[in-house]
Amino acid sequence: MKKIFSGEAIKTASLPQLKELCEAMREEILRTVSVCGGHLSSNLGIVELTVALHRIFRFPKDKLIFDVGHQCYPHKLLSGRADRFHTLRKFGGISGFPKREESEYDCYDTGHAGTAISAALGIAKARDLNGENFSVIALVGDGSFQNGLVYEALNSIKILHSRVLIILNDNGMSISPTVGGMHEILEELKGAENEDDIKLFERFGLTYRGIVNGNSFEELLPALEEAKELLKHGSVILHVATKKGQGYPFSEQAPLETHGVCPVLPVGEYSAALGEELCALARKDPKIVAVTAAMTDNLGLRTFFDQFPERAFDVGICEEHASILCAALATGGMKPYYAVFSTFLERSFDEIIHDICAQNLPVTLCIDRAGVAGADGETHQGVFDLSFLSFIPNLTIAIPKDIGEFRAMLRMSAKYPSPLVIRYPREGREGTVSDFEIGEFEVLHSTMSDVVLIAAGERCLRLAEDVRLAALERGHDVTIINARFLRPLDEKLLSALPQTNIVTLEDNMLCGGLGDAISRFYRNSGKKIFSFGYGDRFLPHGTPHELMERYGLSFGAILRTVEECFARG
Amino acid sequence: MKKIFSGEAIKTASLPQLKELCEAMREEILRTVSVCGGHLSSNLGIVELTVALHRIFRFPKDKLIFDVGHQCYPHKLLSGRADRFHTLRKFGGISGFPKREESEYDCYDTGHAGTAISAALGIAKARDLNGENFSVIALVGDGSFQNGLVYEALNSIKILHSRVLIILNDNGMSISPTVGGMHEILEELKGAENEDDIKLFERFGLTYRGIVNGNSFEELLPALEEAKELLKHGSVILHVATKKGQGYPFSEQAPLETHGVCPVLPVGEYSAALGEELCALARKDPKIVAVTAAMTDNLGLRTFFDQFPERAFDVGICEEHASILCAALATGGMKPYYAVFSTFLERSFDEIIHDICAQNLPVTLCIDRAGVAGADGETHQGVFDLSFLSFIPNLTIAIPKDIGEFRAMLRMSAKYPSPLVIRYPREGREGTVSDFEIGEFEVLHSTMSDVVLIAAGERCLRLAEDVRLAALERGHDVTIINARFLRPLDEKLLSALPQTNIVTLEDNMLCGGLGDAISRFYRNSGKKIFSFGYGDRFLPHGTPHELMERYGLSFGAILRTVEECFARG
Repeated sequence: MKKIFSGEAIKTASLPQLKELCEAMREEILRTVSVCGGHLSSNLGIVELTVALHRIFRFPKDKLIFDVGHQCYPHKLLSGRADRFHTLRKFGGISGFPKREESEYDCYDTGHAGTAISAALGIAKARDLNGENFSVIALVGDGSFQNGLVYEALNSIKILHSRVLIILNDNGMSISPTVGGMHEILEELKGAENEDDIKLFERFGLTYRGIVNGNSFEELLPALEEAKELLKHGSVILHVATKKGQGYPFSEQAPLETHGVCPVLPVGEYSAALGEELCALARKDPKIVAVTAAMTDNLGLRTFFDQFPERAFDVGICEEHASILCAALATGGMKPYYAVFSTFLERSFDEIIHDICAQNLPVTLCIDRAGVAGADGETHQGVFDLSFLSFIPNLTIAIPKDIGEFRAMLRMSAKYPSPLVIRYPREGREGTVSDFEIGEFEVLHSTMSDVVLIAAGERCLRLAEDVRLAALERGHDVTIINARFLRPLDEKLLSALPQTNIVTLEDNMLCGGLGDAISRFYRNSGKKIFSFGYGDRFLPHGTPHELMERYGLSFGAILRTVEECFARG
Repeated sequence: MKKIFSGEAIKTASLPQLKELCEAMREEILRTVSVCGGHLSSNLGIVELTVALHRIFRFPKDKLIFDVGHQCYPHKLLSGRADRFHTLRKFGGISGFPKREESEYDCYDTGHAGTAISAALGIAKARDLNGENFSVIALVGDGSFQNGLVYEALNSIKILHSRVLIILNDNGMSISPTVGGMHEILEELKGAENEDDIKLFERFGLTYRGIVNGNSFEELLPALEEAKELLKHGSVILHVATKKGQGYPFSEQAPLETHGVCPVLPVGEYSAALGEELCALARKDPKIVAVTAAMTDNLGLRTFFDQFPERAFDVGICEEHASILCAALATGGMKPYYAVFSTFLERSFDEIIHDICAQNLPVTLCIDRAGVAGADGETHQGVFDLSFLSFIPNLTIAIPKDIGEFRAMLRMSAKYPSPLVIRYPREGREGTVSDFEIGEFEVLHSTMSDVVLIAAGERCLRLAEDVRLAALERGHDVTIINARFLRPLDEKLLSALPQTNIVTLEDNMLCGGLGDAISRFYRNSGKKIFSFGYGDRFLPHGTPHELMERYGLSFGAILRTVEECFARG
């Protein structure tokens, strides 16, 4: 087995030794990702570039900021974490994203797209104010170049009079293939040294260099040397073309399938159901359109895009724009479905309020990966959505108990005249469903005992059932209610509930979610409310089960609370 | 007095008649704004352009979308609202922004920057899918062209294959003078027909035309005719130069001072205090830096920018970028203060979570215009911030009771090692302040009665005192507590409170704010909690007092609740 070396050894190695290092790193990444899951093709593509950066620059004195950050594995292997790399994305192990707490080589935490240039400008400005001297490098994929933040940062370069090196890592892909006007500009740059497009960057105060083959040391090393020199005088953009999946034939051919690799489940089960139901609805209703922000496949919408290309819009990594586009389509009589991961919807917060809800438009937000999302960690957990949506006027929030109910909610949504959210996790079972109305809860199990579990979503309802069965073994049965809607609450059912002890379960922060809403409803009623959800901290990477058990939805703690209710009588 | 005419009369009028119309409109705008407040110079500057649009296009069949929307007064005068225009920005009167509910001539509600092109693309796409035929026009100021959303929308033009007319209304100003790389591109376009910069727009799929003098019908009318023709074949950007304040000498010379005109208060009192304290702190601490998103003057930071230019950054209308810049400056050892209006901070939501709080960085967010902001209406109310901040881990939230306490909080912030929010309204009184710790509440008035009012912020504490005095007249005294911090709560004080009846007051949505936090703390304690704040609806324009009284913080309702507590004994 070839050996991974780093530090001074990289600076003195011969080219053949560097190439061997890359082979060793690719082997390690392949081996680890095949066990732990993670991002494969983007990390394979960037091995030479990372090695070259470590040869030319001096980390951690120099600062390297990864946009999104999913492509940081080679950097982790070269910065003292090779021996722990096999713990990648496991609870307590190495994070799949840059983490300041993990290493001084990680100078800025990322996870969402488009932040690296802003961060680099801030770090460079602090350097200048402190009278320090080091290089600041932002490594940004072409997919992120669709995001408005990149442009806001470019617009600031002249304002801040600072010096940063932007490396545009252009593989023609974000998670889905890169799209849009900026993509075409970058493609034309690749075709020839197009003066017009180079001027675009120069207008923003950047010296442009490129295109460099990012998988060739022969091209990379002199280009980085030159960039380092230019950086003394101003900001530089180095345009590097890399091949996603480089060195791994299957990944080279299928970068999309191997962007994120999970060792267990290739496709989200709720996502697949979304695709099926939306296609069925769209066949009947020509007003139905679907919008995604560079996530067509992960959201289960590939078939929809194939069958209804004129009604399917992938706008690139532009979550804000996607929301407004939906609102405006709705003003024109369309019925838009915006599918998005919970964590990325945070980018649309302002537009959900002002464009969708203040205008009370019939946009349906399909929020995938809601609740703990698992191995990607802090920046990818979907645990805030109920909290940041629950106070927005005009918005209905639905939380299906299983995929069958999700399908029913989608069918219901087709005629719903107002903003609607449906939030769901990745994994689920089909289940069965009876008819229901907007805002109607469901009693899944009814007893005469004085304890009721009110739970939202499949994970929490399964947990509630497990707790019920465990309590039953001790002779105590409890009522279980499926809180299908956070907004509106089923006030009729809640008003009629005879139980004194109410236990709420939600796969969300405790603050601002179901527990608070139920508690608000019962305020001053004499009911005892016990709420379970995530406490006041960011949740690291781990399996959903590990995170639930550890950070607020522990089976044992819930059972204990139930038993204490019975003990008090 | 000259007469305002519209509709067919505009289409057949002679040029001299059009110019008379403009004079009449300017008179009406000046008269109304001098009484009602509002945006003066931007509306004066756009009179000819609006008249020309109404002459060349057929509204409401054609669709006109205003970016931000503060420049819609001439459009309102020409679309059946001239007779009600004297009610501008008054409760129940004409809104200062486009409102679909107000007129079919307003096709999309706006208020925050950068949304108009996205909205135009959505409306145009719906038109195409519906097989309809009309023109869609987005009218966007050069200030908005700094915002990333504009770029996300431009990136989508080729994706959506749609046809929109973008009118770039270039007056060289947002609220503050426009800054940054894009501004320089636009300035160079004005200097000459610069081919490089024109190509920039063409790369995005736009046919560029300009520069047109936007205050001259002789130039405007043929340019709009041509644009209308070009629009049949694809998207067009028409670059129009207008003069902010045109036709009103004082406003032409001082567009900044007359951007937003308020008939009562020229400068926010809290804003002025922010400027004074930050300057004092910065003189002692070289690490202090200030960041704003195109709002230097409104936030009281002009003196800071003059005195510490190397530590003051106005990044343009880029709230997301501003937040990341602060986070990154903090990683470099700086102490950043990001001052921003509450409503615009919504744009930073994702970055507050992931860049500032997940990294636990000592960034201070100074949230101005928090609570009901008044006459600007739905899109400008600062009533969501406590709800969207209260669940974010690592964040401390402070709410001063008066300007003296605000100053003390700012001084305290200088050494605070974690993310901190201070939220305050525009108007306030100086007050006095005693020492306090982070998370410490203050008992302002103590009695032995069984009712306590817990209120956050100056408005609510004044209201609490008014209620106390009214109750006292009926023989009932109540305790008043200043909830200086929403996070952390003063658990020690709350635990020791002897009162059974707790009444909470906050200038924020009821859901997710102080009342919910207090209620969560006292859950299952037997305390009775009565919360006052804004209910589940968007708040229209009106004075802060009108809005508070009508939508959730009614003096009478609070007094009644207090009296009922005493009646129950």
